[in-house]
Amino acid sequence: MKTFTVLFIPDNRSVQVDEGVTIAEAAAKADVFINNLCGGEGVCGQCKVQVTKGRVEPEERAGAFFSEEELDEGFVLACQTEIHDDLEVVIPPESRLEDAQIMTEEARALPQDPKVTPLVRKIFLELSPPTAEDNISDIERISRELRKKLGWHSYDISLHCLQHLSTDLRDNDWKITASVAKDRNGYRILKIEAGDTSHRNYGLAVDVGTTTVVAQLVDLTSREVLGVEGTHNRQARFGEDVISRMIYACGKGGLNPLHEAVVENINGLVEALARNADIDPKQIHVLVAAGNTTMSHFLLGLTPCSIRLDPYVPTADVYPQVPAREIGLLMDPEGIVETLPSVASYVGGDIVAGVLACGMADRDEVSGLIDIGTNGEIAIGNNEWLVCCSASAGPAFEGGGTRCGMRATRGAIEKIEFVEGQLRYETIGNAAPRGICGSGLIDCIYELVSHGIIGADGKFRTDLEDDRLCFEDDIPCYVIARAQETETGEPVVITASDIDNLIKSKGAVFAAIKSLVDYIGLGFDQIETFYVAGGFGSYLNIPKAIAIGLIPDIPQDRIQFIGNSSLTGARLCLLSEEAFEKAVYISRSMTNIELSHYQPFMDEYVAALFLPHTNRRLFPSVTY
Amino acid sequence: MKTFTVLFIPDNRSVQVDEGVTIAEAAAKADVFINNLCGGEGVCGQCKVQVTKGRVEPEERAGAFFSEEELDEGFVLACQTEIHDDLEVVIPPESRLEDAQIMTEEARALPQDPKVTPLVRKIFLELSPPTAEDNISDIERISRELRKKLGWHSYDISLHCLQHLSTDLRDNDWKITASVAKDRNGYRILKIEAGDTSHRNYGLAVDVGTTTVVAQLVDLTSREVLGVEGTHNRQARFGEDVISRMIYACGKGGLNPLHEAVVENINGLVEALARNADIDPKQIHVLVAAGNTTMSHFLLGLTPCSIRLDPYVPTADVYPQVPAREIGLLMDPEGIVETLPSVASYVGGDIVAGVLACGMADRDEVSGLIDIGTNGEIAIGNNEWLVCCSASAGPAFEGGGTRCGMRATRGAIEKIEFVEGQLRYETIGNAAPRGICGSGLIDCIYELVSHGIIGADGKFRTDLEDDRLCFEDDIPCYVIARAQETETGEPVVITASDIDNLIKSKGAVFAAIKSLVDYIGLGFDQIETFYVAGGFGSYLNIPKAIAIGLIPDIPQDRIQFIGNSSLTGARLCLLSEEAFEKAVYISRSMTNIELSHYQPFMDEYVAALFLPHTNRRLFPSVTY
Repeated sequence: MKTFTVLFIPDNRSVQVDEGVTIAEAAAKADVFINNLCGGEGVCGQCKVQVTKGRVEPEERAGAFFSEEELDEGFVLACQTEIHDDLEVVIPPESRLEDAQIMTEEARALPQDPKVTPLVRKIFLELSPPTAEDNISDIERISRELRKKLGWHSYDISLHCLQHLSTDLRDNDWKITASVAKDRNGYRILKIEAGDTSHRNYGLAVDVGTTTVVAQLVDLTSREVLGVEGTHNRQARFGEDVISRMIYACGKGGLNPLHEAVVENINGLVEALARNADIDPKQIHVLVAAGNTTMSHFLLGLTPCSIRLDPYVPTADVYPQVPAREIGLLMDPEGIVETLPSVASYVGGDIVAGVLACGMADRDEVSGLIDIGTNGEIAIGNNEWLVCCSASAGPAFEGGGTRCGMRATRGAIEKIEFVEGQLRYETIGNAAPRGICGSGLIDCIYELVSHGIIGADGKFRTDLEDDRLCFEDDIPCYVIARAQETETGEPVVITASDIDNLIKSKGAVFAAIKSLVDYIGLGFDQIETFYVAGGFGSYLNIPKAIAIGLIPDIPQDRIQFIGNSSLTGARLCLLSEEAFEKAVYISRSMTNIELSHYQPFMDEYVAALFLPHTNRRLFPSVTY
Repeated sequence: MKTFTVLFIPDNRSVQVDEGVTIAEAAAKADVFINNLCGGEGVCGQCKVQVTKGRVEPEERAGAFFSEEELDEGFVLACQTEIHDDLEVVIPPESRLEDAQIMTEEARALPQDPKVTPLVRKIFLELSPPTAEDNISDIERISRELRKKLGWHSYDISLHCLQHLSTDLRDNDWKITASVAKDRNGYRILKIEAGDTSHRNYGLAVDVGTTTVVAQLVDLTSREVLGVEGTHNRQARFGEDVISRMIYACGKGGLNPLHEAVVENINGLVEALARNADIDPKQIHVLVAAGNTTMSHFLLGLTPCSIRLDPYVPTADVYPQVPAREIGLLMDPEGIVETLPSVASYVGGDIVAGVLACGMADRDEVSGLIDIGTNGEIAIGNNEWLVCCSASAGPAFEGGGTRCGMRATRGAIEKIEFVEGQLRYETIGNAAPRGICGSGLIDCIYELVSHGIIGADGKFRTDLEDDRLCFEDDIPCYVIARAQETETGEPVVITASDIDNLIKSKGAVFAAIKSLVDYIGLGFDQIETFYVAGGFGSYLNIPKAIAIGLIPDIPQDRIQFIGNSSLTGARLCLLSEEAFEKAVYISRSMTNIELSHYQPFMDEYVAALFLPHTNRRLFPSVTY
């Protein structure tokens, strides 16, 4: 079989592959991470790459995603394009996996350190059969060998596993693979399998978001990400945001439907991931979930009712390690589920994951993390101290609560710009527009205010001559995509009330950042880097986010968009016992400032209900 | 209400009780332990006591158990006799609880030591409700309070318990009781209950014997034994001894029927114990089981198949702590089951319990433990070393494998004696004889050989004129109870083949003792005390056991019959974390000598197939 070399740009990373594998597979092999929302089915258009050297066959589905021009320039879908030549492939920013920036960095660093071990290890053991001189019990024989290989002194074992041990050992000629995990207090043998299955050790990193649930399948031996799948959170039918879902769960509806919805979500993702990677879900021995405190409670079936009410008390911050069978997850039933620890009722495991992922708790210099979702959570600190807070931002940035809002998937308008006086937009997958996602809404507000279509107070200048300006029951709105351009035949619009909501949302996030920075007595300029995370998809226009007053006005090179850092943090923990312990440490050492009891926040919030802010001196770079 | 004083002899222990309580209840209050096989129903006759001072009402059921003479002498059933006067009550040896001797001693010693804590503790917590200044998570609030009370740093918790925590705390005004247990690696919160239930903390000590299963209900707060119940092991239908049951379990029958049988056994006992003590079985939070290695495997559902085959390997020696729900036991489903650790395939947790109970591992001087059942197990040692071995003795001493053998229950002939040339016997409960139990069989062999009815080789002297000598197909036998005396109308006899079996059984036990003593290079005279344990009921005639060559010929004051030490050991562990840890230490430090691979044992065995022994110098006190 012929082999070819593929060079990936801008990673500048090359890999040798057999003829006929896809560009996506080659990228995975090269540790270059490309979007794969549809799991390689060629239907989402998220894995667009440009072949700049070498010849590729035109592929069937490309026409649906690319213009003639793009096709001429060598754009193809990585998952559909087979390799029959040496290639140079450019990965455009929008095709990089949401959390690629951090992931590639960390995942690459990990294997260097021999102490870094995944949460579940699989150890192949060739045991000497018992003799009259050496007739210790079966479990002691296994423990003795594990002691030699891993050095730990003692091993706990579940009854279930022990019940099959005798047969497992004798049926397999004393050659077995033990799955071993650490829990809070010691080491535990989870499972015994026939023969050497140590290379079939998979884990799942899951971001349990309020709006979306995203899961990554990770090969714990090679540390490769084998796939990522995302889906709407099925809990949406019980309420858009965590508050309404808590009301449902704590009222007549009960907790169970909420718990089952998220389990079904994950099981659906596992099914797709396992099918695409051609693995048995039973070989998934560990799942690490990151979510806000309420979502973590729903996942584990914990009552969230006191989270909602002053003084906002969760059942737990640090969650127990749970066998997968107790939750009914589609994976090894004896495998383990770890949930990233929370800090408080409104600062959850997703933020802990983010702090872990961006590495701010490892460095001397002070950094900040801004996670923008239904809540805006802020964490600031370094390797010596960490403080955080949370403010309710509403669902606008996640595509909820606005007329045409949607999450960052195919058909979402993610970019809006006036070019020579004409409004232009781009949609995800280049599809006909279906709505506007978070990044599109930020662009939209910026374009409207900077072109004088709305004022600094967010009100429409209804006297303008603009054929996109429209009225519904005398309430002004603005057409972003006209009816004839959209998938549904209905125009995509932004209304005055949408703009009100967005200003409240951005005001809450900024007020939280400002309050926290003031609280610790620092200025924005003393914070080395601001990491911005959130469900904006692959794209967030930082200058525009500054210009509408969502994030502080500091030099752009000190702001880094890190996408879904909740997922990245979960994967880091999957791959490293030490990272998980670090997450527990972060959750325990972070100080939460309860903004609902903090008067300066209220003042900051009111001051921030303006574009960019009532105090323009805070945004010197803003010119509109 | 009037109160009366009851003085118990020979304990010389008096107690004040309210009018109308039974003598059995008064005895329990006084820490005087009386047999209670039927659970106070007045049907087993095992709680016979003699009222020597004070007046008692004659009771209905007494006629079934006592002769006119006995009634005149003040004999009554303790469980049926109410107290309406100051009394002096003599407990005859046969009415003492099987393991009373050690139990009273140890159970009394325990409360002195404040460090001694039961395996499960129940701690009442009055928590301060959360405030804005103190809004830590619910589980952290509990852990903080437990830290203050118990000093341990961290507490694990099951998901099940955590799922109910929020509601449990708020519904009960922050006043709850936590059940806390230690496992191998740390401390765990098992259960949260409303209000103060710390005084309702019960445990179960279970002796899982091959022939019988006996359970004691223990109040872990007061350390009182609330009841004891025994029953035939339901596994008997799958085979009389462990070998035939293993063959069943490892053949077509499968493990499950054996596992379920012992669970049903225990559940039946729990039901009776809970009913009699008027407690909810859900308040039993811990069960400690002691049994031989095979029985322990059956209890936990572990495959015992390799125990039976050379090189005799069990699945486990030290068993995991298991939640009760995983075994389906009738108790708190979140409660824990601890199984006393084994030493080897044929030296089980029952022997470890015995070593623990007799205290030999705590003392400088060397002692021996002889446990006589289907196997004879011997342990010798002190606080520095312990060795043990096991020999298959056959079921004769437990009432199996002989024509009229039965276990030590009502109607069993437990004593046989020639008085002025006439054979006299006594049965348990003074009932019409149904068969002969182990102690009766030992008496029987002794009487037959010492009166020349059988020779030192065990063969009948068929030329004797004795109307009890009979023949069945030319095989001689001897009538112990004539047909007209028995319950069934069939005579109770001992056959030549029974005597053969008994000589093999006693030969195996003695050979094991002798081999082990020789192995460690000591003489019998260097062993301070021999503790003899076994299912003989309340009675074993030591001089006769010596005279037939079952146990070594040493002064009687150095031999102590300790009854069911397996049960005593289990109860000690129930009452003391330290005792359980000691049991694990004993199991790990005891050296097992595999007699099937030890030639001197075979020689000793052949030499012991004689009454008392081929080498009479080993039994200088024997005069027949």
